[in-house]
Amino acid sequence: MRMYDVITAKKHGMELTDEQIAFVVKGFTAGDIPDYQMSALLMAICLKGLNERETATLTMEMAQSGDMLDLSAIHGKKADKHSTGGVGDKTTMIVAPIVACLGVPVAKMSGRGLGHTGGTIDKLESIPGFRTTIPAEEFIRNVNEIQIAVAGQSANLAPADKKMYALRDVTATVDNISLIASSIMSKKLASGADVIVLDVKTGSGAFMKTVEDSAELARAMVSIGNHCGRKTYAVITDMNQVLGRYVGNWLEVREAMEVLSGRGDEELRMVSVTLASYMLYGSGAAKTLAEAETMVNRVLDDGSAFRKFREFVERQGGDVSVVDDPSRIPPVTYEVPVTAPRSGYVAEINAEEIGTASLLLGGGREKKEDTIDPLVGIRVDKKVGDRVNEGDVIGVLYGNDEKIIDAARERFLGAYRYSDTATKPVVPIYGFVDENGIHLN
Amino acid sequence: MRMYDVITAKKHGMELTDEQIAFVVKGFTAGDIPDYQMSALLMAICLKGLNERETATLTMEMAQSGDMLDLSAIHGKKADKHSTGGVGDKTTMIVAPIVACLGVPVAKMSGRGLGHTGGTIDKLESIPGFRTTIPAEEFIRNVNEIQIAVAGQSANLAPADKKMYALRDVTATVDNISLIASSIMSKKLASGADVIVLDVKTGSGAFMKTVEDSAELARAMVSIGNHCGRKTYAVITDMNQVLGRYVGNWLEVREAMEVLSGRGDEELRMVSVTLASYMLYGSGAAKTLAEAETMVNRVLDDGSAFRKFREFVERQGGDVSVVDDPSRIPPVTYEVPVTAPRSGYVAEINAEEIGTASLLLGGGREKKEDTIDPLVGIRVDKKVGDRVNEGDVIGVLYGNDEKIIDAARERFLGAYRYSDTATKPVVPIYGFVDENGIHLN
Repeated sequence: MRMYDVITAKKHGMELTDEQIAFVVKGFTAGDIPDYQMSALLMAICLKGLNERETATLTMEMAQSGDMLDLSAIHGKKADKHSTGGVGDKTTMIVAPIVACLGVPVAKMSGRGLGHTGGTIDKLESIPGFRTTIPAEEFIRNVNEIQIAVAGQSANLAPADKKMYALRDVTATVDNISLIASSIMSKKLASGADVIVLDVKTGSGAFMKTVEDSAELARAMVSIGNHCGRKTYAVITDMNQVLGRYVGNWLEVREAMEVLSGRGDEELRMVSVTLASYMLYGSGAAKTLAEAETMVNRVLDDGSAFRKFREFVERQGGDVSVVDDPSRIPPVTYEVPVTAPRSGYVAEINAEEIGTASLLLGGGREKKEDTIDPLVGIRVDKKVGDRVNEGDVIGVLYGNDEKIIDAARERFLGAYRYSDTATKPVVPIYGFVDENGIHLN
Repeated sequence: MRMYDVITAKKHGMELTDEQIAFVVKGFTAGDIPDYQMSALLMAICLKGLNERETATLTMEMAQSGDMLDLSAIHGKKADKHSTGGVGDKTTMIVAPIVACLGVPVAKMSGRGLGHTGGTIDKLESIPGFRTTIPAEEFIRNVNEIQIAVAGQSANLAPADKKMYALRDVTATVDNISLIASSIMSKKLASGADVIVLDVKTGSGAFMKTVEDSAELARAMVSIGNHCGRKTYAVITDMNQVLGRYVGNWLEVREAMEVLSGRGDEELRMVSVTLASYMLYGSGAAKTLAEAETMVNRVLDDGSAFRKFREFVERQGGDVSVVDDPSRIPPVTYEVPVTAPRSGYVAEINAEEIGTASLLLGGGREKKEDTIDPLVGIRVDKKVGDRVNEGDVIGVLYGNDEKIIDAARERFLGAYRYSDTATKPVVPIYGFVDENGIHLN
């Protein structure tokens, strides 16, 4: 087999065979296929497309290019949840304890964040003592005993995807639905879960800006998952403003705990309930989605989801006294209210800009080596649809470095757009995708 | 400017600006733009195309990436002729003396052949003593004094094209009309002629297999040439069988001399007359094509074209006694007639296979380092449309190595296809392209 012929076939819009795709992924990972041939193929794929079978094969080959986590020692159907990335997205910390306390095991490998905010691992580490590096045996024992463990990703997951992504990133071949979907799903498949629920973000703060594009990406990922024998669902959720009220590592843990206690932001709760319900439904713990939702709402309201979170923190070495009393975490040096420069209705909040404001305050990483300040961040008081008067507090900056407060305030203010006429609140969930296709609300 | 943005633009089917194209060619030539980005752009170009302005700019930038020959010291409008490559194509040795003896200067830089047969330089070197490496001053003086000089290409012509072609060759991005046209024309523009006549071959033995594709390529090249201020014409000629009767370096020189003397193969003469006429017409030496043809036929028939060839050979150190009496060249060791395996009409002669037979005999190069045997080659006696009886001689192999005669005969025989019913002779010229477009016969 020759790479030249594979490129030629795709250039002419032909379907690639499973053998050809395997040849490409193996050869590229091993370094036998040079970057310049791979980038020509990637461009041909961007312009001619991959069908569902080709996409599934590509994904499986990339998943198998490195470690495939073996979770067979864990009893029951393992459920996993993945977000395509948003600002203020703390749903993993909410849905994992929910489904765990309902008997569905969650064995989650999570990454660190690069960009606006930390990843789930960074957020959990803002709890004093919390260990995210745990040996494989302990990880599996934890899941078997308390149905939940979250660890930093140490395995060599889908190295083919890593290498391919680096090349796509510099050759303008990122924005192809099949390639995006297979990149995400290759890591999910390698992570070993039986049920995969995808939170596909849409809007100004997301990679996909329109509901239609997000739905297409969701459909592609659900197709891959089901093709590869994993029960897969996707929920299309909003990222036209921050999810919930807080951005920043410890601030997000605190907000997640509020929702777990049956309080907190309504939209954040709604998104979390929906994601958790799909995880329960997919794993068979609930017969219908409606039944799953009832179960989820019960454990949020009766305190069992919160107790599971507390047990989880304790098991991984975290200081549960701050779970019981978040005020034990020392306050930041500067709590700076930001006020509305004019009266009107909030028409738009660019979530990416809010994320950048948090990054400036020290809450995220620009480079891998950067350290995160776990306590800084942002509170968003006024959201889309809210009426404000000039001088009203629209949010609060939490910082430890006076020098950057002004720049962060600028960013925060710049994220808001106002209207003189009433605006509608943002819808938190746009629809979902299952094996039968796209269902928009 | 970023290469990423250029790739993105072309991927979305947008026109590239002249600045973007210059940036790409300069950056790639200098090594600042890596191969993997260039191949992504090339694939996007293959699938989205380049318009005439983009193609002309690309060509000019590639031409200017290396030496631009300065022929300003030569008086008059310099005419050049370029063939896209065929088997048995010896027209340069015919048309150059024709137009030179009619006062149009020909200052030709020519390459060595790689593949079936030698290039013009290899062919001329089969004349004992002929020098193809001549200093620039002597080259220019020769053209000014006798209107003709042919030298091996020593200048660094269009290095960007060379580098780009090597990449296209391994990334399945060769077969795009704009890229093929700009590759050929970049070298022609750098060679400095004012009038460029292109012989675009079509058929089984050519890169372009159909008249339509050849016409499109011709149109693209003529457009580039005219865009860049050179009078450019293309003639679309046949390569469904060998041009003329001989393949092999000295054998082709001898056949060219026959045509120059007013004798020889009719089709070869017809193609040569047409090419030479466009060169005369383009340079202004004739007011109409018809006038040009009359002039060309006259100098072929009155011996002046032949005398000009003799003068040219003498000036470049060649032994004119073999021009006067070709039989002074010693014969090859083996002259092996090949006979028809069946009776019928010749329906097809695969020119490429005939070329390979000549290559096997030692008449061409597989690798740059290979040496050519100038005396070996092939005579083709039966051509498409001819009636043959089983056992009739259809051609002759001229070889110096007994061991390879059988393999060459196999190739030669394999090139022929016969029909039981009468077949039509091949048309030598299909049409032409000028600034007004494509004109097929």
